[in-house]
Amino acid sequence: MLIPNYDDMQAAHERIKPYVHRTPVLTSSFLNELTGAQLFFKCENFQKAAAFKVRGASNAVFGLSDEQARQGVATHSSGNHALSLSYAAGRRGIPCHVVMPHTAPQAKKDAVIGYGGQITECEPSTSSREAVFAEVHARTGADFVHPYNDARVIAGQGTCSRELVEQVEGLDAVVAPIGGGGMISGTCLTLSHQAPDIQVIAAEPEQADDAYRSFKAGHIIADDAPVTVADGLKVPLKDLTWHFVSTHVTDILTASEQDIIDAMRLTWLRMKIVVEPSSAVPLATILKNKPRFAGKRVGVIITGGNVDLDKLPWMNR
Amino acid sequence: MLIPNYDDMQAAHERIKPYVHRTPVLTSSFLNELTGAQLFFKCENFQKAAAFKVRGASNAVFGLSDEQARQGVATHSSGNHALSLSYAAGRRGIPCHVVMPHTAPQAKKDAVIGYGGQITECEPSTSSREAVFAEVHARTGADFVHPYNDARVIAGQGTCSRELVEQVEGLDAVVAPIGGGGMISGTCLTLSHQAPDIQVIAAEPEQADDAYRSFKAGHIIADDAPVTVADGLKVPLKDLTWHFVSTHVTDILTASEQDIIDAMRLTWLRMKIVVEPSSAVPLATILKNKPRFAGKRVGVIITGGNVDLDKLPWMNR
Repeated sequence: MLIPNYDDMQAAHERIKPYVHRTPVLTSSFLNELTGAQLFFKCENFQKAAAFKVRGASNAVFGLSDEQARQGVATHSSGNHALSLSYAAGRRGIPCHVVMPHTAPQAKKDAVIGYGGQITECEPSTSSREAVFAEVHARTGADFVHPYNDARVIAGQGTCSRELVEQVEGLDAVVAPIGGGGMISGTCLTLSHQAPDIQVIAAEPEQADDAYRSFKAGHIIADDAPVTVADGLKVPLKDLTWHFVSTHVTDILTASEQDIIDAMRLTWLRMKIVVEPSSAVPLATILKNKPRFAGKRVGVIITGGNVDLDKLPWMNR
Repeated sequence: MLIPNYDDMQAAHERIKPYVHRTPVLTSSFLNELTGAQLFFKCENFQKAAAFKVRGASNAVFGLSDEQARQGVATHSSGNHALSLSYAAGRRGIPCHVVMPHTAPQAKKDAVIGYGGQITECEPSTSSREAVFAEVHARTGADFVHPYNDARVIAGQGTCSRELVEQVEGLDAVVAPIGGGGMISGTCLTLSHQAPDIQVIAAEPEQADDAYRSFKAGHIIADDAPVTVADGLKVPLKDLTWHFVSTHVTDILTASEQDIIDAMRLTWLRMKIVVEPSSAVPLATILKNKPRFAGKRVGVIITGGNVDLDKLPWMNR
């Protein structure tokens, strides 16, 4: 297991600079009053491909030797990692192979194709996905870039917190969503070295609380198929991300589906930004735990803005 | 008729600075490619009360003498001006009386009350509105702040372009929506003095094209009750705003309802910002007139972000 370190993050920062945005930090006096905290929202919804994942994907793609790069990159994902890897590969001009269930929304497929990715469809089961991916991998010789359990990806995600602590002084805590743990791991990597007094707090849907239960149990617990509106947060921890979660995370807080939807709608309503459900989980947990954050300066990672504008979760009620 | 000048705008800039945001300018490489122009979006959806109108309202409120201010301010509006005047009056700690039809959406009423405004309801007709407003005005002695046909308001709106030309160099044109003409007049006021080579182009819904027809005819034409999704743009020009439109506007371009809705959805989808329909009219007209803007550096005023999140216009199709 190759654990990325602070130098890897610094190298990632230099490597990906031409391909990613230094995203802005927004504040809301309304949300500050409501929570009693001072919140600083790091807006990765304004990132390329509208997702922080373009940081890790770009670090993997642009770190390849020319020889490796010619074979392209490959992954399995129907979410932001597929978009982000396609974007990064497109910028380098190399192939990107994405294995995706044929049941994935057409909008997601179109977005991957729009960025130049090549989709191979599988059945919506783990066994089919693994078999199809193995075939694509063997046929193309492409480099496998895992969505989060990859040292290059974690080092890339760590560049987000590097920017945040440059942009905002004196943070007491950073709250970020946790799914597979890529963003949280990158946050731990950067802050444990650069600003070890800042607490790293993970926010998770109650209905996909495998990281919370893993954290309490002291070993990885993986759920089969959790159901949550925060569709980026359904995946389990893996060995690399568990390393960071188990050694550097201060706490994991959870929020109900209704709390997440309410926090998402509140963010749209008051901050006038489009954020995806996963991005609202931190605010939902802060609103549920106000005394804990009162008077504190809190960084909040808005992870992305890819959402189906024709079907917003508060309209299903 | 008191026509505001550049010094009035400069005074407004200093006066309102503590109460308004210097809003950011965003860009989108996707929209640049799509239009062939370089677009710079001045994001007044991130303004206080989520509307540029807080600039003019604040200039009126904070320009009052203490004696005048004690009587408060009053207006008739069911839109962003009502919110903005309530916000500004609240910041000064003086009363704000708003006459609003009882048929206005509850969300709008709640927002005005949330900012501390006092609502007096009228029937949804011009005669009732005028009668009720006259009664409120006589009873309270409050200062009437017209939504746009007011020199203080126009000077305040002009501060938006003052910021824009500081933030973006070498603009060829600025495109802003036109309803009553407050924003366009402020834009003309500032740019005709500060950067006279920048064209000022107004963007209007085809279904509420009274300004376009006025511009062609050479005199004010007012429609009775135009129907458009861009609900901020239904009101007619008045003498003060006609002065600026007739002397400084280069052209007025129009867009259909479908064009406006498509441009609004595209802005949400690609820029990840919440903008109201009126704010999408400039982009809609640019997309319809690509050759005119190709290769040009174009400022686009995003006028506000107040929209009913439970009822988005592209969902009515």
